[in-house]
Amino acid sequence: MSKEYQYMQRAFELAKKGIGSVNPNPLVGAVIVRDNEIIGEGYHEFFGGPHAEVNAFRSATESVEGATMFVTLEPCSHYGKTPPCAEAIVKNKIAKVVIGMLDPNPLVAGKGVKLLEDNGIEVEYGYLCEELSYLNRVFLKFIQNKVPYVVLKTAMTLDGKIASKTGDSRWVSNEMSRAHVHQIRNELAGILVGVDTVIADDPMLTTRLKKGEGRNPVRIVVDSTARIPLHSKIVNTPSQAKTIVAVTEKADSIKLKQIEELGNTVLVTKSRNGRVDLSDLMRQLGVSGIDGILLEGGATLNFAALEAGIVDEVISFIAPKIIGGANSKSPVGGEGIEWMKDAIELESIKIEQLGNDLLLTGKIKKNKCR
Amino acid sequence: MSKEYQYMQRAFELAKKGIGSVNPNPLVGAVIVRDNEIIGEGYHEFFGGPHAEVNAFRSATESVEGATMFVTLEPCSHYGKTPPCAEAIVKNKIAKVVIGMLDPNPLVAGKGVKLLEDNGIEVEYGYLCEELSYLNRVFLKFIQNKVPYVVLKTAMTLDGKIASKTGDSRWVSNEMSRAHVHQIRNELAGILVGVDTVIADDPMLTTRLKKGEGRNPVRIVVDSTARIPLHSKIVNTPSQAKTIVAVTEKADSIKLKQIEELGNTVLVTKSRNGRVDLSDLMRQLGVSGIDGILLEGGATLNFAALEAGIVDEVISFIAPKIIGGANSKSPVGGEGIEWMKDAIELESIKIEQLGNDLLLTGKIKKNKCR
Repeated sequence: MSKEYQYMQRAFELAKKGIGSVNPNPLVGAVIVRDNEIIGEGYHEFFGGPHAEVNAFRSATESVEGATMFVTLEPCSHYGKTPPCAEAIVKNKIAKVVIGMLDPNPLVAGKGVKLLEDNGIEVEYGYLCEELSYLNRVFLKFIQNKVPYVVLKTAMTLDGKIASKTGDSRWVSNEMSRAHVHQIRNELAGILVGVDTVIADDPMLTTRLKKGEGRNPVRIVVDSTARIPLHSKIVNTPSQAKTIVAVTEKADSIKLKQIEELGNTVLVTKSRNGRVDLSDLMRQLGVSGIDGILLEGGATLNFAALEAGIVDEVISFIAPKIIGGANSKSPVGGEGIEWMKDAIELESIKIEQLGNDLLLTGKIKKNKCR
Repeated sequence: MSKEYQYMQRAFELAKKGIGSVNPNPLVGAVIVRDNEIIGEGYHEFFGGPHAEVNAFRSATESVEGATMFVTLEPCSHYGKTPPCAEAIVKNKIAKVVIGMLDPNPLVAGKGVKLLEDNGIEVEYGYLCEELSYLNRVFLKFIQNKVPYVVLKTAMTLDGKIASKTGDSRWVSNEMSRAHVHQIRNELAGILVGVDTVIADDPMLTTRLKKGEGRNPVRIVVDSTARIPLHSKIVNTPSQAKTIVAVTEKADSIKLKQIEELGNTVLVTKSRNGRVDLSDLMRQLGVSGIDGILLEGGATLNFAALEAGIVDEVISFIAPKIIGGANSKSPVGGEGIEWMKDAIELESIKIEQLGNDLLLTGKIKKNKCR
């Protein structure tokens, strides 16, 4: 591995430290190097806080004049919540900047590189691009499409069941897998379920990590006709996490008022076949700044979301056990696709073993017409 | 890796060459070494043919007197189809024998080692034991229990479906996965399906490998009341592969006669809830020398086989695609188990990627009361 890759790798590791705290901003790490020695490093620590480059300057142990900066994302060139990093780099007399990936944010997009080069700074880019794209996949979708990046999470047995014939689902996956889900809840801004899940399980949908850690996602319930019970935990714990109930115009206005009076938000969406139009819901959630969503739906909602084309990624836990049952439910139901050749395909497949459980992650192939 | 492991590894590789040709005998490889040089090697090539040790002696490029033999399985000490190998080792004046694993065959079981040691030959054993147990798992079960080792094969989408809602299953898994299944058909003596699969798909269940390669398994159809259509391929191709139709006493005797007249075998088994008693079927197949079976059943037969406790191993192909459908079938159906905590668990999990498909292999945990 070349020295360049090593420093970019370090910047990449630093960037990851911001997971769960910076969105909808990107995760960025930066390292300042002179004579093969790191003399400063930093990362974007929290939303609205100083950028990685600035933190790297602040941590520098000596003058950075003439040094090289490794930064995972193209330095910004516009005034946002903080002054532009590209200008700070010029001011600090950095000689060379090595960039992981360019910023697709239309406000930056190459302008950062141009500002640096116009000021006589040598610029290189394109390191760890694939890894960095994956790390910032939520940011990248949100900044370009203004709708959240949606991760569909499923957990099933080796015979494709999410519960036994009696509806028992405690537990399909093992402790390590369940802990991993809480990690993901911490990373994504929102969590989406159907009202039937709320009626059946009365879940909290909060993040349970080690004491003191973790951030709760905004809880979003798809509930076309406002059937959510007013005694459910999810609408009675606004102090723990925000809850949004998504309904159509058909929903009873008195019930909606009661939901709001408990401290929750109601979103009225367009209707599609009498149900919440999921694409419209995504647009509205995007407007309110939710950049990433974990979809933990039942079989029907999962199919509706896939059909609507709002799902970007699937993470599927597979437990090596068999429960059987001709009527036991599987992760995706609904109407279903007619022919196997038309199935929704995944790509960029990654496999991980969590104890005996298997975790398969993949991105939905978007080249098909859906 | 020590020299001993390297030679045993070579013997292991040789043993594998007999896959598909030696059953119900074990797969065995042998290497003769002197002064860190291999001077002879051999393997058990076909059922009834010379054993690995004898083939190694025959291939020796010089006198083997005083040399060391590495053999994957304890040399036999009894007269079977060939004279005992332990005696041949003594006669050839081998100085030391390194054995991979001891033979659980009650006819051998330690007697081979004893015969060698009684004749002043140094013996060591216990190399690559886990790998060798797996390689000979069919032999090991059959020799000890007189019933076939059963491998349940399933192929499903990432949402747990074996077909779309229209019943379309071409194809769930990719070409590499399907080729792998034909490899397994070549390795196991029998292939088991339910009559509904014959009625729906009219399959041949033969082995399709590269031209000239491959051996067809005996085709076994579970067909309690002899519903098999007399025009099905499987009962009209006795020249290509043997077919056994397993029925209960309820089956119509005229239909059975017609099946036999086409050149097929009928096995009448005990009945369990009006259906073929799968445990009895296994005993009968064991008696007829079938040591290993690939179960490619539908959802109902698969559950019945698991419930009867005849399944030893599961190989599950998982294709990273989603088809949906509340009524699309999953790999194991039937009555089903009530509670998740009572699910049938797998152990010794292995994961392999075949292109984008995933192959999970595991052994059924047998410690539960079933």
